[in-house]
Amino acid sequence: MDYWSKQYIPTLKESPAEAEIESHKLLLRAGLVRKIGSGIYAFLPLGNKALENVKRLCCEEMDKAGAMELLMPAVVPAEYWQAGPRWNAAREIMYQVASAGEKAEFPEEPAFVLGPTHEEIITPLIGSEATSYREMGKTFYQVQTKFRNEIRPRYGLMRAREFIMKDGYSFDATDDEATATYKRMAGAYDKFFARCGLKFISVEADTGVMGGAFSHEFMVPAEVGDDDVVYNIESGYAANVEKATSGLVPADLEDAAPVGEIEKFDTPGVKTIEKLAKEPFNIPADQQYKTLLFVGDDKLFAVVVRGCDQVEEAKLGSLGYALIRPATVDEIFEAMGAYPGSLGAVKGTIANRDKLDGIYADEAIRLVGNGVTGANEKAKHLKNVNVSRDLDIDKFGDFRKVQAGEPCPVSGKPLEIQRAIEVGHIFKLGTKYSENSEYGAQYVDKDGNKQPAVMGCYGIGISRTLQSIIEQKHDKNGIVWPWAVAPYQVIITVLDPGMEEADTLAQKLGEAAKTAGASVLVDDREGRPGVKFKDADLIGIPLRVTIGGRGLKNGQVEMKWRDQDEMQKVDIADAESVLVEGIKAKAEA
Amino acid sequence: MDYWSKQYIPTLKESPAEAEIESHKLLLRAGLVRKIGSGIYAFLPLGNKALENVKRLCCEEMDKAGAMELLMPAVVPAEYWQAGPRWNAAREIMYQVASAGEKAEFPEEPAFVLGPTHEEIITPLIGSEATSYREMGKTFYQVQTKFRNEIRPRYGLMRAREFIMKDGYSFDATDDEATATYKRMAGAYDKFFARCGLKFISVEADTGVMGGAFSHEFMVPAEVGDDDVVYNIESGYAANVEKATSGLVPADLEDAAPVGEIEKFDTPGVKTIEKLAKEPFNIPADQQYKTLLFVGDDKLFAVVVRGCDQVEEAKLGSLGYALIRPATVDEIFEAMGAYPGSLGAVKGTIANRDKLDGIYADEAIRLVGNGVTGANEKAKHLKNVNVSRDLDIDKFGDFRKVQAGEPCPVSGKPLEIQRAIEVGHIFKLGTKYSENSEYGAQYVDKDGNKQPAVMGCYGIGISRTLQSIIEQKHDKNGIVWPWAVAPYQVIITVLDPGMEEADTLAQKLGEAAKTAGASVLVDDREGRPGVKFKDADLIGIPLRVTIGGRGLKNGQVEMKWRDQDEMQKVDIADAESVLVEGIKAKAEA
Repeated sequence: MDYWSKQYIPTLKESPAEAEIESHKLLLRAGLVRKIGSGIYAFLPLGNKALENVKRLCCEEMDKAGAMELLMPAVVPAEYWQAGPRWNAAREIMYQVASAGEKAEFPEEPAFVLGPTHEEIITPLIGSEATSYREMGKTFYQVQTKFRNEIRPRYGLMRAREFIMKDGYSFDATDDEATATYKRMAGAYDKFFARCGLKFISVEADTGVMGGAFSHEFMVPAEVGDDDVVYNIESGYAANVEKATSGLVPADLEDAAPVGEIEKFDTPGVKTIEKLAKEPFNIPADQQYKTLLFVGDDKLFAVVVRGCDQVEEAKLGSLGYALIRPATVDEIFEAMGAYPGSLGAVKGTIANRDKLDGIYADEAIRLVGNGVTGANEKAKHLKNVNVSRDLDIDKFGDFRKVQAGEPCPVSGKPLEIQRAIEVGHIFKLGTKYSENSEYGAQYVDKDGNKQPAVMGCYGIGISRTLQSIIEQKHDKNGIVWPWAVAPYQVIITVLDPGMEEADTLAQKLGEAAKTAGASVLVDDREGRPGVKFKDADLIGIPLRVTIGGRGLKNGQVEMKWRDQDEMQKVDIADAESVLVEGIKAKAEA
Repeated sequence: MDYWSKQYIPTLKESPAEAEIESHKLLLRAGLVRKIGSGIYAFLPLGNKALENVKRLCCEEMDKAGAMELLMPAVVPAEYWQAGPRWNAAREIMYQVASAGEKAEFPEEPAFVLGPTHEEIITPLIGSEATSYREMGKTFYQVQTKFRNEIRPRYGLMRAREFIMKDGYSFDATDDEATATYKRMAGAYDKFFARCGLKFISVEADTGVMGGAFSHEFMVPAEVGDDDVVYNIESGYAANVEKATSGLVPADLEDAAPVGEIEKFDTPGVKTIEKLAKEPFNIPADQQYKTLLFVGDDKLFAVVVRGCDQVEEAKLGSLGYALIRPATVDEIFEAMGAYPGSLGAVKGTIANRDKLDGIYADEAIRLVGNGVTGANEKAKHLKNVNVSRDLDIDKFGDFRKVQAGEPCPVSGKPLEIQRAIEVGHIFKLGTKYSENSEYGAQYVDKDGNKQPAVMGCYGIGISRTLQSIIEQKHDKNGIVWPWAVAPYQVIITVLDPGMEEADTLAQKLGEAAKTAGASVLVDDREGRPGVKFKDADLIGIPLRVTIGGRGLKNGQVEMKWRDQDEMQKVDIADAESVLVEGIKAKAEA
């Protein structure tokens, strides 16, 4: 049982200018965190309590699922990453640390990095010792401060430079066992986020720089999220837009027959899909082919999509390039002999076809059939361009961003799109890290043969989850903490501190609540009732018990749940039992 | 209740070559930690459990003493340190981190540092909001991963580059209140280290780069320690040698009368105290004056001690220089006109007296009275040198390292010296950090006047404490964990896993132990009893219950406490009650 006067809860009436979104404002206003630098926060005692609760719930679910907690270092020798498969792809996001004796002049290659994730450490750590199949089937996790060299941190803890992560790693002997472990972890994630009081969905996700076989994200729907989730509520289909597919292109679609010869026509000043869609051309965007150039591992390549579609860069990962970026204007001109706005992939129109490592087309261009595209000449386009006859395509695939309204790949019903915050991400990694013999995460099977462990990895953004709870659980007066996460579960607001009857009753009810398993804060500050009620609402304590004023004179206390409007008057004689019953009901929920 | 076969406890028969001291060997052999890099370790599950226990005990004692847990960032903007009082003194020990966009070319002034301690952060954090005297009287703490740019890490977790610290900070309105807080924290430290099962002593300590009014260290006696503790068991006097004083020089000592005129004599090839003490000179070291030169904040100064004494550099801190280092040979020659081995502080013999900011003498040279010192000429010394008449001393003080056998300053009895490991350090800082108006840890007192908060800071090396426990609590077979810290408290060694009677009994006794509040590991591995007993001893579980073999056939189980030699045979019918009683007795101890 804590007393407000002895605690440190610096609530703010106004939102600091630095905060843009509600949860960020409330983190600051409720005295949970303070900014130390861009993307760098201190958790004040109240915020630390809520954070510890989220951590504890996470650890409990991990333990129940059979995972073992360990703790790897935050500062890791760079050589581990350099020996791994993604140093070049990942080094940009890592803080780099000089070694002793290199203070003034930092070397080009750092001695240490601050690990944003720990595959490169745990694989050799476990791999160098777990030499028998008997030692496979193990899952490890840690809860750790992580660091990300975030150029533009934002939204408080949502995209921070320093944050708290739970990261887990599993090692199994067979693919089936690894899939079973993956499912068990997914189940633990479901339970954890549910205990946090969050509405969330798990969605199919891109594996990105992590690599691996498949992956799911745990998403909290919120307009301030960084991700788009594509879903259909009836079929249950849900995927990150980076990964989502649709039934837009029927499997049995036949290629369109040509409607005539290719014709070149003048398009002075036209450099966009939109201009070509307007007078005097009136060519709808879905009747145009759009050609975009990228560089993958220093090789130039082109992607063709419908004019109405966008390339989903994450999907280009399937092409096998490790690092992909948009091509520069100069690179484009060198290959195509034309600038963006006039590009096309019609055979024979490309200035230096051999400069392109490949031309890849989204399958949806087959719906266009005969359409319009750039002629690789300034102010010229081509019409009657037939996909099969005219376009110089090396490979078709799914390269576009799915749009709302496209048919669900499962049910055929229209897909919807919702912004969301990614709070968890699990990957079945397969043998990407373990097959590297330098890493050594290999075991000897029953027949005496060396085999790479089949791995999975499992992340939860603990501090991001905390803020997501606030983003989802607040009203105009402040935070509405779910019971299991609340920094205190019961607040006893004493209206007349110093009045013996009130103080004694507060003490008695506080002890009863504590014995029933609740954490209790007694607001014993001098001050007007309105200020104390406002503060209690702002910091979002689930149950408020008010002692004093007219109620006390009438032999009553007031009880109010933060998530309900009604206030309940309870006779002092019944107060303890009503309080304890309320707490027990919450704890069991 | 965990099963060994599902856990990850990679015990080692042999000590890895990297380990020099017993506790380091046992950390590795018992599968508690693994080395990731020099001074950088991963805590494996068993080590993490013990570490979490130490953390929990620490947090419990902090909470009981009224301190509030918070969490500050590990990566802190360098500007906080640059604005503080010790950037230049402390930057060498901090890892420096480049900001986003500075990957290849690190700047001379870093964007961030990895904080080894957080005065520079918490002072403005709390100070900018706690504006009234009513908000004083608060103590905060965090348990955090800390980093130190250790050039020569050693002894495992003892002197690591990354380690776990509990650091606490207090803010009081008055000096008396700050002293009371300091004492309350010291009491919490006593309780914490006692609960860890450690023999320890708290000693007076130097405040060093932290600054402040006074300070105590919590020391675990051990030959592998980095510190020397000076103490007298009867009087209770105990101090770090950096701080320790003695009664060697009586307060009423009168200056010796001169015994004759100064005489110069030839000392060819003599450059040390030892040579002068031998034939043909035979001048005892305690009859010589030794003159040493230092540079403090770019100013040269000299310190004179007896030939038999050593300068204690920490004590030079009282001279007011922020950064002190030994002078170079060139610097010495420029001022003295002579090289080390021929130096002296006799008036008129120093080549450039004005190059010396001061000549300071340890008070014990007054015991020499009339002695021998260098003439500031090669191969020449001076005798009959009288302290008062001849030496050019600006200031006397306590600048020497106390030696064993000197009289205790309290009782006059001989002092003893013992090596020890520093596991905790508390400082009464006073207003060193808060008086800086830029930092703003100032409050408004009852009369409306601005006052600096009176601060204290309180550190515990959590990971170092863990290893110190092992250093103090082990035998030839392995670790002997104290009950409260043990990763598991009870191990049930099943000699015939798979035999139903044994497994059922293990399950039953395990559940009973768990219900009684103990953490339980069941050794369910196939393997020879000897191997399993050795492993149980190595990992140091306090109570072993052995099920199987001949004992089981005779209707008995065996119980053995790790810290006792005798093994106890208990009838199966009594096993549960004996086990539960044993656990309860330990938990109450």
